[in-house]
Amino acid sequence: MLQVNGPRLWASLMEMAKIGATGRGGVRRLALTDEDRRGRDLFATWCREAGMSVSVDAIGNLFARREGTDPAQKPVLIGSHLDTQPEGGRFDGVYGVLAALELVRTLNDHGISTEKPIEIVSWTNEEGARFTPAMLGSAVFVAATPLQAALETQDVDGVTLAQALRQCGYQGERPATGQAVDSYFEAHIEQGPVLENHGNSIGVVTGGQAIRWLDVAVTGVAAHAGTTPMPYRKDAFFASAEMALALEAIAQRFAPQGLVTIGQAGIAASSRNTIAARVAFTVDLRHPDDAQIAAMERELRDAFAQIAKRRGLNVAIDSNWTSPATPFDESCVRFVEDASQALGYRYERIVSGAGHDAILLARHVPTAMVFIPCVDGLSHNEAEDALPEDVTCGANVLINAVLARAVALACTPA
Amino acid sequence: MLQVNGPRLWASLMEMAKIGATGRGGVRRLALTDEDRRGRDLFATWCREAGMSVSVDAIGNLFARREGTDPAQKPVLIGSHLDTQPEGGRFDGVYGVLAALELVRTLNDHGISTEKPIEIVSWTNEEGARFTPAMLGSAVFVAATPLQAALETQDVDGVTLAQALRQCGYQGERPATGQAVDSYFEAHIEQGPVLENHGNSIGVVTGGQAIRWLDVAVTGVAAHAGTTPMPYRKDAFFASAEMALALEAIAQRFAPQGLVTIGQAGIAASSRNTIAARVAFTVDLRHPDDAQIAAMERELRDAFAQIAKRRGLNVAIDSNWTSPATPFDESCVRFVEDASQALGYRYERIVSGAGHDAILLARHVPTAMVFIPCVDGLSHNEAEDALPEDVTCGANVLINAVLARAVALACTPA
Repeated sequence: MLQVNGPRLWASLMEMAKIGATGRGGVRRLALTDEDRRGRDLFATWCREAGMSVSVDAIGNLFARREGTDPAQKPVLIGSHLDTQPEGGRFDGVYGVLAALELVRTLNDHGISTEKPIEIVSWTNEEGARFTPAMLGSAVFVAATPLQAALETQDVDGVTLAQALRQCGYQGERPATGQAVDSYFEAHIEQGPVLENHGNSIGVVTGGQAIRWLDVAVTGVAAHAGTTPMPYRKDAFFASAEMALALEAIAQRFAPQGLVTIGQAGIAASSRNTIAARVAFTVDLRHPDDAQIAAMERELRDAFAQIAKRRGLNVAIDSNWTSPATPFDESCVRFVEDASQALGYRYERIVSGAGHDAILLARHVPTAMVFIPCVDGLSHNEAEDALPEDVTCGANVLINAVLARAVALACTPA
Repeated sequence: MLQVNGPRLWASLMEMAKIGATGRGGVRRLALTDEDRRGRDLFATWCREAGMSVSVDAIGNLFARREGTDPAQKPVLIGSHLDTQPEGGRFDGVYGVLAALELVRTLNDHGISTEKPIEIVSWTNEEGARFTPAMLGSAVFVAATPLQAALETQDVDGVTLAQALRQCGYQGERPATGQAVDSYFEAHIEQGPVLENHGNSIGVVTGGQAIRWLDVAVTGVAAHAGTTPMPYRKDAFFASAEMALALEAIAQRFAPQGLVTIGQAGIAASSRNTIAARVAFTVDLRHPDDAQIAAMERELRDAFAQIAKRRGLNVAIDSNWTSPATPFDESCVRFVEDASQALGYRYERIVSGAGHDAILLARHVPTAMVFIPCVDGLSHNEAEDALPEDVTCGANVLINAVLARAVALACTPA
């Protein structure tokens, strides 16, 4: 099996991590800032040195192309993103971009051509930390978000994305939408603890899970904490607590794939000695299967309504946002799995818990992802870390999966 | 049995309610504001018209004295407060002051003398709505709070209580502490739903309940809502929800007198798709018995510690404030109960759920209170209301209880 140059990939990761390096081992390279420009410049330079042609589209997505042998073929797209969270790590996003670069460098080393062209992409504003929402560059690419709307998005200082693109010199000529693509591959750290806990080096990602965000408002009656006997109370907080535990029980019934989180909760006009009249909380439901997440929501609505009825108070449940399950292309997933197996790595099939550009691409293009473990499951954190051997394993899986799809023509003259 | 002039008392209540009247039937007469000054002026005028001598102490407590026949006797003190909440009602506090005035007017009508002098008091800043804490005037009177500290207390605009006293002309010459008192009686609306629900007109108050305020902090681990399987989570919100329900179960074990409230709760650095790392919430425990409230707190600490241990996260429980149970003087309570019975009213013994000046007085002076129902248990609310017949009943109980203590000498020449 073909293998990449692990130390070279690691050195490139560490070199890139210097741009926007924080004092505590992390990286701050917010989208379209001066740090992001320097990161893009370095990456573009490396791509040109690897013989690729660089282009930028109207939303700032950065492409580097290695031609294939068959001019009729659409490119296999590989990449991720170079922007980071405000207190981000050295691997989130950048690993997928530089693993793709290492892939091309390795093909060059071995004089390997492919029938299909290979294009590396670094998507604009994947993190959503400077401009909202996240994954804006890939959303425009697949026409899920109109270009104009994306360009008008403002950061907290009122700078539009269009202004930021011009300021950092990455508003390109290439059309942002309508680019024909053969398939999309992305390598990424898992951003969770599963691979590490299972002792696996590779996650063969089968798709993105469905997500449902709900807003729950529980309305009881405010009353004096000292003068109101317990049986007369309509306490919105105790009702909410019972709903929370009912939600946890739903997760158990849909284990292991059902996930439930109450990330935000508050008591309106709260006072230490006043019975809570109104509690608002959020619910985040996840499941890789659309039918199962729908069942979770139904159970939630039934349970919450019953609790409210029994306690004599009111509950309102509003849908805030939903995202359907996104299964990846089975043939592309197989390429990743076959490569992992052929290389002799410990791997497992895994669902992507977080959002990725690949999730958006997968709705339009045959897509697969390769996960590698991150230490303690930490991400979006300056302490984010990955082991050099895992970094190499992931790139080895990526190159063999991509070559299967791009049709390698071994050892043609360089 | 002697009976007051109910319509006259009601008319005085309605006349006083015009001062600071809100558009929605309530009253806004914050302590030592211009509205409070006008209320005090009207009350002082009424007292002088009833033949009483008016004096003001150094913290602004307003006294009106009707002499007794025995110069060696200390006065029976009767009163409450004229200040209100920002959106307060027409009865909270003012009822106890004007019921005391009606008591003296009725004694005058019938030419009744008492051995002991009678003094009516309107305490400064009972509500705690302008200056914190509540019950400041009575706290200084019983030397629970130093005068100087009370005078230096500031409102939200930085005005000290001393400045406010001078501005409204109610910083008096009389010493605020060291006044010898025979006993203290206070009539008040219940501020809860018990009397109304039981169909009783009178609550014979047996004392104030013990209160313990706790601050609870639950610390888990923040993690991504989408990438962290349920078994790996240390979710501080679900743990807090379980603690809340354990607390509710404690109230059931200490029913009917044990009360538990979580009035404030929040998730630190909360985000809809991040597992809660830190939840802080308050606990308000109440029970009329010190030993029982101590047992409630022990059970709480045990239960919370077990939940935290089982879930693998940390809980810290800090005592914020405690107030011991304050039983009233049994002989004074009997005077109230005997009067209720002799008048043929439906009554019950009841514990005061809210704080009152009487609770502070009771720690130093034989004390009792008379409760009357308030409609729907509402108080601290512009919709606060009381029925005219209950207003009259309460004043009738008050006058007969006070006369039993002050030793009435019927029908002496006026």
